[in-house]
Amino acid sequence: MADTVRLGIIGLGQQGGMYATLIAKGMVPHMTIGAICDVDPARREAAAAQHPGVPVYADHVEMLESGDVDAVVTTVPHYLHPEMGIAALSRGIHALVEKPAGVYTKQADELIAFAASKPELTFGIMFNQRMNPLYQRLKEIVAAGEIGRVLRSNWIITTWWRPQGYYDSSAWRATWGGEGGGVLGNQAPHQLDLWQWICGVPRSVYAKLGYGVNRDIAVENEVTALVDYGDGVTGTFVTCTYDIAGTDRFEILGDAGKIVVEDSKRAVVTRLRKPEVELSAGMDMGDVMRLFSGEVDLDTLYTQETIELGSAWGEQHSGVLENFALNVLDGTPLVAPGADGIHGVRLANAIHLSSWLGQEVPIEFDDQQYLDLLNERIREEGAFAAREG
Amino acid sequence: MADTVRLGIIGLGQQGGMYATLIAKGMVPHMTIGAICDVDPARREAAAAQHPGVPVYADHVEMLESGDVDAVVTTVPHYLHPEMGIAALSRGIHALVEKPAGVYTKQADELIAFAASKPELTFGIMFNQRMNPLYQRLKEIVAAGEIGRVLRSNWIITTWWRPQGYYDSSAWRATWGGEGGGVLGNQAPHQLDLWQWICGVPRSVYAKLGYGVNRDIAVENEVTALVDYGDGVTGTFVTCTYDIAGTDRFEILGDAGKIVVEDSKRAVVTRLRKPEVELSAGMDMGDVMRLFSGEVDLDTLYTQETIELGSAWGEQHSGVLENFALNVLDGTPLVAPGADGIHGVRLANAIHLSSWLGQEVPIEFDDQQYLDLLNERIREEGAFAAREG
Repeated sequence: MADTVRLGIIGLGQQGGMYATLIAKGMVPHMTIGAICDVDPARREAAAAQHPGVPVYADHVEMLESGDVDAVVTTVPHYLHPEMGIAALSRGIHALVEKPAGVYTKQADELIAFAASKPELTFGIMFNQRMNPLYQRLKEIVAAGEIGRVLRSNWIITTWWRPQGYYDSSAWRATWGGEGGGVLGNQAPHQLDLWQWICGVPRSVYAKLGYGVNRDIAVENEVTALVDYGDGVTGTFVTCTYDIAGTDRFEILGDAGKIVVEDSKRAVVTRLRKPEVELSAGMDMGDVMRLFSGEVDLDTLYTQETIELGSAWGEQHSGVLENFALNVLDGTPLVAPGADGIHGVRLANAIHLSSWLGQEVPIEFDDQQYLDLLNERIREEGAFAAREG
Repeated sequence: MADTVRLGIIGLGQQGGMYATLIAKGMVPHMTIGAICDVDPARREAAAAQHPGVPVYADHVEMLESGDVDAVVTTVPHYLHPEMGIAALSRGIHALVEKPAGVYTKQADELIAFAASKPELTFGIMFNQRMNPLYQRLKEIVAAGEIGRVLRSNWIITTWWRPQGYYDSSAWRATWGGEGGGVLGNQAPHQLDLWQWICGVPRSVYAKLGYGVNRDIAVENEVTALVDYGDGVTGTFVTCTYDIAGTDRFEILGDAGKIVVEDSKRAVVTRLRKPEVELSAGMDMGDVMRLFSGEVDLDTLYTQETIELGSAWGEQHSGVLENFALNVLDGTPLVAPGADGIHGVRLANAIHLSSWLGQEVPIEFDDQQYLDLLNERIREEGAFAAREG
């Protein structure tokens, strides 16, 4: 068995450049840079200068067929993730797609179905936050039932501040035709993924969105969504890109405990001594008065553990790259299988669709209706071609 | 001018008993206990024992007409607040109604319209949290525009834990016919008031409610509401009565700053140096990277002030009682005018109605439709008479 995966990087922008640096610095065991591809001559020059000896391509198909790479990562605009993923897999090249897995469910589903037809190839997605040890621990705690059945979850994630200069930096940014949306597709996919990874996939969504709030852009940069998981379980998700002193606060209430995460770094985990309904059955209003006046030893009701876990710059991305390489080499299970990418795309689309229709929409919405309404926006914008189904 | 208002307390339960104690201890300047009224003989005996010399009545009309009281407070089940308020005002007696101002808008509107026809009488509502110096300060900050125009507000208020024994303590508790609802009418009216007092009245509501979650009750004890103020301004409100380690976190984002309140005791107020849109106009992605890597002196962008203010037990209620007395005596403006009570009732009703209809409802919903649907629930319950329009 080879002990190294040669990665082809498609797109040497901010993310691609970061991955090249991590690999070149030896921070990713079992991975080397096989080749770099970029359509921009200036970036190809930079690649050659920064990574001497690494083959550089202008065309990704040429790179895929060169024999220089065992796998690729697609650090390209969102719309291209599915087609480049399929281009690689169809040539026997393992594919790690950047998030999101696509702009709309039809194209993400197509990629995922194609990958499923190639089970011998590794298909992953760059959900680097799944490597955050804090969220890994919280997922374990919830999955093990330590806070009971999840009844409600609420995330405010507004640490995605982006100034006008960011939006002006590329013609495709924050457009319907070039990027396919705003904060839901670009900044918040990590939280849309972690939320569903830990708390499950909702059944329906009702959302209010703001488009171009305080920014000269067409797409959403403000989201307030209310989701329904069935059986009375709800959640809310709030994000925006204009809160310079941003909030990152995630609360999960279970019927036997609770988790409150601040800044994706610290979590307070409350574990009830008994299921809440049993605590309730044994107490009356006198107990409530004693409880709130501090006369009850809280330790008789619950324990609270503060967990602080972080990761240094690059560790999460290196971790996904290494895990992907190990899956290629020895079948180590993927932390972020590519097929999981559909959940974030579907939820982001459902949030858009609810806003566009002004009503609650099921998570299994009409994919073609979504694409038709997206294309309406692309045509109105007039800068990019509409997408084919 | 007399310097004392003689208060008649209608209902010597938990709240009425507290007000009697505060006044008897001399904690309420300009107010004495004029009389006490309760339908329960045992409570009348207790009143006579605890407050010797204070006249005690079984019938509130008899007390109102006795000449013993200048004003009354209505610490009785919610449905009775409007009719007892009107009974007092129609006899020239000033009225301080307990919150909520009524169970449904039609009865609260009737009370408020009647009070408006008696401008010479004082009409107040027991929104004691308006006396919380922290919320008073935050209202000033928002009203003065110190955080700019409010764009979003989000409150999770689950410190209202109530065990089954509480619900079982009275036959009318947590019933449609006896109490008219659950957490929205009983525990959360303070926050429904403060939220609207500080952030304004929304135009529409979409909500998901849980009825009898982990409790043997008919009414709602779990609420997730998404409100729309128009012009892209949104809010969320989450409350429940089964979170024993409850959360109280209120965040207000403005276009020139932000307020985050924890536990109704501490607030961090962020004031931007310039409106956010101007900060945005002068920065690019390089600035974002420098900002998030700690290379930017945040003081050049904003200031943050931590405000900690609290009130001792009874101070808030004493404050409302004294303010009410001063309004009677010398026209001191009311902190909590009775007419303000409609907002909490209207929002609570709209939240119910959205849940019952499964759709977004305007804040100016059809009052008769609400009452009809409430009466459906009262009839199904079968324990109390339906309400007349």
